[in-house]
Formats: sequence, C-alpha cells, structure tokens
Amino acid sequence: MTADTIIAVDTRINARWLIPIEPSGVVLDHQAVLIQGDRIAAVVTQAQADQDYRARETLDLNRHVVMPGLINMHGHAAMSLFRGLADDLPLMTWLHEHIWPAEGRFVSAEFIADGTRLAMAEMLRTGTTTFSDMYFFPEVVASVAHDVGMRAQVCFPLMDMPTMWGSGPEEYLAKGRQLIEQWQGDPRIMPAIGPHAPYTVSDDPLKKAIKLAGDTGARIQLHLHETAFEVEDAFGKTGQRPLSRMAELGLLGPGTQCVHMTQIDDSDLEHLKATGAHVIHCPESNLKLASGLCPVERLQREGINVAIGTDGAASNNDLDLFGEIGTAALIAKVVASDAAALSAHSALEMATLRGARALGRDHELGSLVEGKLADIIAIDLSDPFIQPIYDPASQLVYSNQGRQVSHSWIGGVPQVQDGNLTRIDVPDLMLKVQLWADRIRASDPDQS
Amino acid sequence: MTADTIIAVDTRINARWLIPIEPSGVVLDHQAVLIQGDRIAAVVTQAQADQDYRARETLDLNRHVVMPGLINMHGHAAMSLFRGLADDLPLMTWLHEHIWPAEGRFVSAEFIADGTRLAMAEMLRTGTTTFSDMYFFPEVVASVAHDVGMRAQVCFPLMDMPTMWGSGPEEYLAKGRQLIEQWQGDPRIMPAIGPHAPYTVSDDPLKKAIKLAGDTGARIQLHLHETAFEVEDAFGKTGQRPLSRMAELGLLGPGTQCVHMTQIDDSDLEHLKATGAHVIHCPESNLKLASGLCPVERLQREGINVAIGTDGAASNNDLDLFGEIGTAALIAKVVASDAAALSAHSALEMATLRGARALGRDHELGSLVEGKLADIIAIDLSDPFIQPIYDPASQLVYSNQGRQVSHSWIGGVPQVQDGNLTRIDVPDLMLKVQLWADRIRASDPDQS
Repeated sequence: MTADTIIAVDTRINARWLIPIEPSGVVLDHQAVLIQGDRIAAVVTQAQADQDYRARETLDLNRHVVMPGLINMHGHAAMSLFRGLADDLPLMTWLHEHIWPAEGRFVSAEFIADGTRLAMAEMLRTGTTTFSDMYFFPEVVASVAHDVGMRAQVCFPLMDMPTMWGSGPEEYLAKGRQLIEQWQGDPRIMPAIGPHAPYTVSDDPLKKAIKLAGDTGARIQLHLHETAFEVEDAFGKTGQRPLSRMAELGLLGPGTQCVHMTQIDDSDLEHLKATGAHVIHCPESNLKLASGLCPVERLQREGINVAIGTDGAASNNDLDLFGEIGTAALIAKVVASDAAALSAHSALEMATLRGARALGRDHELGSLVEGKLADIIAIDLSDPFIQPIYDPASQLVYSNQGRQVSHSWIGGVPQVQDGNLTRIDVPDLMLKVQLWADRIRASDPDQS
Repeated sequence: MTADTIIAVDTRINARWLIPIEPSGVVLDHQAVLIQGDRIAAVVTQAQADQDYRARETLDLNRHVVMPGLINMHGHAAMSLFRGLADDLPLMTWLHEHIWPAEGRFVSAEFIADGTRLAMAEMLRTGTTTFSDMYFFPEVVASVAHDVGMRAQVCFPLMDMPTMWGSGPEEYLAKGRQLIEQWQGDPRIMPAIGPHAPYTVSDDPLKKAIKLAGDTGARIQLHLHETAFEVEDAFGKTGQRPLSRMAELGLLGPGTQCVHMTQIDDSDLEHLKATGAHVIHCPESNLKLASGLCPVERLQREGINVAIGTDGAASNNDLDLFGEIGTAALIAKVVASDAAALSAHSALEMATLRGARALGRDHELGSLVEGKLADIIAIDLSDPFIQPIYDPASQLVYSNQGRQVSHSWIGGVPQVQDGNLTRIDVPDLMLKVQLWADRIRASDPDQS
C-alpha cells in the first residue's frame, strides 16, 4: 500500500476492548474505530488502522470498553426536577397528592427546558446518546435536545383531558402535527405521537393518531398494560383487554412502541407477534411502583423486540441506563426461573440495537458498523474496586455504574470527554435546578 | 457554662444531614457527631456542640449525609477474585464447571488473604464497616480483617465432605473451636460457626455445632431455603422441610442467622417467630442465580429481624451494599404488591441496626447514639447528576451509589478519607489481583 491510498479521517479511537453489538455476543481486543464526519468510517484492528488510516485526532482508551451509545427508550425527562419528591407511596397517593399538584403548579415551558437539560446531563454522563421523551411542551424538549446535540424521539402527549399544554385532543393533535412537520427529516430529533394510555385516550383521538402516523410515518409510543389493575379494570368494563382494543383500532404495528407490558397472556403475545409492535421494558419503575414484571425472556424467545427505558426520574429515581440493564438482567432470570436468561450481551443489545430497531433506525444506529452514525461511548474499567476483569460484557452489566462512562460522541461530536460534559454548562444548570427545588419543596405538603 | 465544663473530644464531624437510625425514620439537619476514643461521645446540634465541646479535629461535611457504617451480613469475601469469571449460567454448570474447579485449584491461605483484602477494599470504599464472612481458611480472614481494622463476623465452614481446609467435620470443628478461642472477646473480630447448608451437613456435626455455640456463645450462620429445589428435594426424601429439621435439632435461636430464605410457608414463619432466628436477605444473588424472592415485607410485619448481605462477588457481582439496599427496596415492593413496602428508611435500617441485631451487638453498633462504637460513614450528595434532593434517605436508597461514600470510621479510626482508603495499599493490592487473575484466566475452560 502506497502513501496515497492512506485514508484520512477525523478521529481514531483505540479501544482496549470493543463490543460492537454487531456481530452479536463478541468482545474484541485492541480495535480502532475511525470516525469521518458524523459516521463510522471503519472498525478495524489497531494494526490495520496503522497501515490504512491517518486521523486528525487519536484517542488511546487503553483501559476502556468502546461500544455504541445507549438508547433510553422511555422517559419523562423534565420530571427529574421531581426526583425523590415523594417515594414509597401507593401509586394513587403519589399521583394525586404529590406529582399532579406539583405538575399543575410548576410545569411550564421554562420548567421543561431546565428539567430536560438536567435529565440530558445525567443521561449523557451515564452513557445514553439517544432518548425517548413523552411529556408536556414537546416543542421545548425538541429544541433543547437539538441545542445540546442529543438524539431524541420526542413524543407529543395525547389524552382526553385538558392539561397545561392544551385544551384537549384536538389541540394536542394540531400542535403535534406542527411538531412533526417542523422536525421530520432532522437527523437527531424524531418527532412522534404519545397517546398517554388506553384508559386516558378514547377511540376517536386514537384513530386520529393512527391517521397522523400513517400520513407522516411518525412512531407511536404509549403506556400499555402497566399494571394488573389497568387490564382487569378495562376487561371488567368492556370485556376486552387494552392491547386487544389497540389491535382492533389498528394502532399496533412495526411503528408502535408499547411501554411496560407487565401483563401478557397468550392473546397479547399473538397480537405483538402478528403486528411487529415493540415492547419497552422499564424494570426499575415497574418494581418501585409495584406494577409487575415484564416477561422479557419469553417475549424475546417469541421474536418480539424488547428495548429498555428508565421511565422518569420521579419513579426510578435515576436515569442511569447501565443500572437499568443490570436490574433487567437480574430480574429476567428470576422471572424466567433460569440463571441463563437475558445474558449480559443480550442486555447490552437491548439498550442499543433493539432500541434502534424500535425507533426504526437500526440501519444507522445501535451498533459499531461501518457507515452507521458515530454514536459511541467509552467506559473506563480501571476502577480498582471492580477488578479483576474476566469478561468486560459481564462487568458492564453486573458490576458497572454509569459514572464509569468516560467519553461519548453523538454523530461524531464529542459530548463527554474524560467524564466532563462538553455541551451543557453544569454549574449554571445547578443554579437553576436549586431554584426550582426550593420552590417545589416549599409547595409540597410533606416537605414544607 | 464556664470554660472548665467544656468537654474535650478527639473528633467532631459536622453533618449537613444526619440519619441516626435511632430514633427511626428521621433526617436531622446540621448536627455534630463527637467521637472520643472508639466511641460516640455525643450527637448534638452544631450550635450545642459549639457551646459544650472542643475537638482536636473537626471535619465539615456540608454536602454529606452522616450515618452508621453499613453491615454486610453475608458473603464469601475472597470469591472477589472470581468476580465475573462465569456468568449467565445455570447454577450447577456454574458450580461444577467453573467455581468448584477454580476453588480446588487456587484456594489457599495466600489466595484467601489477597481475595479478602480485595473484598474489604471494595466494601470500605462503598460504606461497609462490618461484614460477615463464610469461607475457607477463616483464620486468615480473621487475621487480615484485624490488620486492616474492619469489624468482621468470621464463620468457619462446616460440612460433611473434605475440602482444601480440612478432612471433614471433626477437623473443621476442632479448627473452628481454636478460631473461637483465639478471637472471642475481640472488639472487632467475631468468630462464628458456619454450617454450609442442611443438604451438606448431617445431623451429627450440626449437633456438635449447636453444642459449640452453647459452650462459647458463638453465632451460627447457614445457607437455608436458598432455592425451591432445596426444599422440595429435602421434603421428597425425608418428608420434612429443612427449616423444620433445623428447628427439631435445636439449631434455631436468637443466635442463628438464616441466609437466603426465599422459600417460606406458614410453618417456616412460625419456627422463625418462635425461635427469634434472624433472616439474611441477599437479593442480587437470589436474582442472578434465579433462586427466588424472599418475602421481606411479610417477615418484617411478623416481627422477624431481616438483615441484608451481598453474598460473594462471584454471584452478585459487586459488594456495594448501597446498590444492594436499592435492589432490596425495589424488589420488596413488587413481591408485596405494595409501593409502600420496605421504605427507604426501613432499607437503611436493614443495612445497619438490623444487621447489628443479627450479630447480637445492637447495644453498641448500628445507630449513631451516645456510647455506641464510632462506626460511621459519610456520603457526599453533591453529585450534580442526582440533584435535586428532597429527601436524603430516599436519595441514598434510590439514586445513590456506594462510590459517593467519602469518609468512614471504624471504632473511631479513619478508614476512608475523601474517598481514599487509609489502611489498604490499593496499588500493591492491584498487582496481586492481576497475578491471580492471569492464573485463573489461564485455567478456566471458557477463558483460556
């Protein structure tokens, strides 16, 4: 090879260990990831990179695992400002006496901007590069995520009742259509439709949501079968399980993301298989609110795509997706009565490629493969207290914490460097967070 | 008050927040903990401390929670050297093909010394000040823990078969009696008796263990009802559940610690209540090995004392007790179908005072009360990514990680200062750990 066949690239990352996700289940030693613009130019051995590439910038990550950025498929980002406001309470006390009054009093465009920024800071710091959001003022979420440069699916809320964001379904759908028109085609912001849940949205707005999805190609994400009560209550009133009603309306399809699904019978399984709808598993929220346990291993064995989300920080209480996949891997085993259920590699895939698949973007996200977008993270495994390391994948899932993430890139743009955020002014954010916290604390019945 | 009534003490810790555990369920603002020698001299407001005390050294922990050191009630410390060696495997494959061969090949006095030191380093770093151990060469564990200055219950192993530590029950019991005689009365090392499990120890050695406990006052800790298989198998062979057999032998009492107890029927509950035996809950190990779920809330409601342990790092895969109580609090809610089950305060008590109670030392450990031993930790809550803080107790359980522990003292002796270990040479330890890891890796069938 002569000098003029050497390929120039922007960035070369030398990785002690590489978990590319594709091919599946492997850990490669001493690889190089080459980035050109917003894409992965190549993934090769370091020896081959020496021979074929010249990079403007080279990073030696000699104690690190390099892998695709994590995809947090469900949350309510701005609720981070309510983190730990009211815990260990029955769901209805939590909602009626704490969360809803606080939302009614505080949620505004400014609250959403600051709260979303706080959530993005935590997510970036702990390895997430793409998140899905479902909350009020989605236009603010989209704009803040765009400013920071995070990849985000932004679901506008849809329900029967009026909220601080609109008077009812007509207004939500009109504003939602605007949101979709504004952002559709953007490489990072994915506008989507977020019907809250079967018990809060009637058939008519759901049909309009399906129509809107058909017109625009936008995804639909909704809370579904979160608790046994939801399913029993619907069945008692209508003789039909909520998932079956969604199927009948035509809402289920490969563009649909069903969040929670702790209740699954054989008919539900058939609907999911027949339609290609995705399940978004939120284990820590399901545990903390005593909602139930999603049978992840069974779903995966049936070929249903299961991605993972943290849910909002108010019911978790953090947005560390590494913690979440650890919990998912532990819980899946006891639910399946099988210590081999949801292996470490499978858990990592759930937080990357399977999330990309739920977004309909697995052709360009979720694995470290030539030509895909350069959404990449590095995790420093040199912490002395988690030694020794026999299997880096197992270490990431069972002994790791998101704080060990040292670097991340989104579309080739550095977002975390040596553990520091490059695009969020953390001290300034902290001042804003403290102001909100003081006001919220003063108004909560158990705090003031 | 005149100058000569001012009390001189060694150390004053100014705490932004104090969770004393006694009284229960409270978080106090701006308190001072005063240490004299190895004891807590007083816990008072900072204003009162200014007035009544003069300290040789004062520490301002203005962003911290100060609370009693954590008590990790079950583990196999030296197995840290096998952390992540073989995961996602059925229990019997894990034991027969990986753990037992590795133990047979590597476990020696030197292995135990290095592995126990590694475990102690991780436990100290993450807030544990007292741990219970059950593994081979307990005399080495006792000596290493004594050198470092950690408080430890050291259970000598007892089982029917020969191991690297002895030829069988007679030798184990003789060596165990020596261990007890050597350490009994030591303020930090608590020698104890560790029958492995009902299915590995016959009635005769169990009776001798009970006799030894009676003679010496040593506690008994054993694995019990870890899996449904254990209980069903015993019942099928003998018509009796293992716990019932232990009760009949006279092994259960206020000095007995029953580890795991994922299987509990009404008769088991009656035995536990009648005898005052303690339950040690190891949620992450129970999940990871798909063993089952201990009904913690039900046990607590019946007045049974439930403490917590991490189990060994090989089935966890870390010894971070803050992570463990987070998991315990989440799991308890879904097991009890009640989001109010095992509150944050209750989870913190499980890892402190309830552990002390299981050790029979709640009169001098487990809470920050005048006259108790000065086993104290501080956790820095200033990490920007877990703000805001409405309730420090909830923060510690649901959003915290052991790495936020900044300080600890055991009997007034500093063990962690600004996140650094004072009594373990971490770089030297890491060299030893890497040597063990290289040898173990080379011998494991899936690694070499």
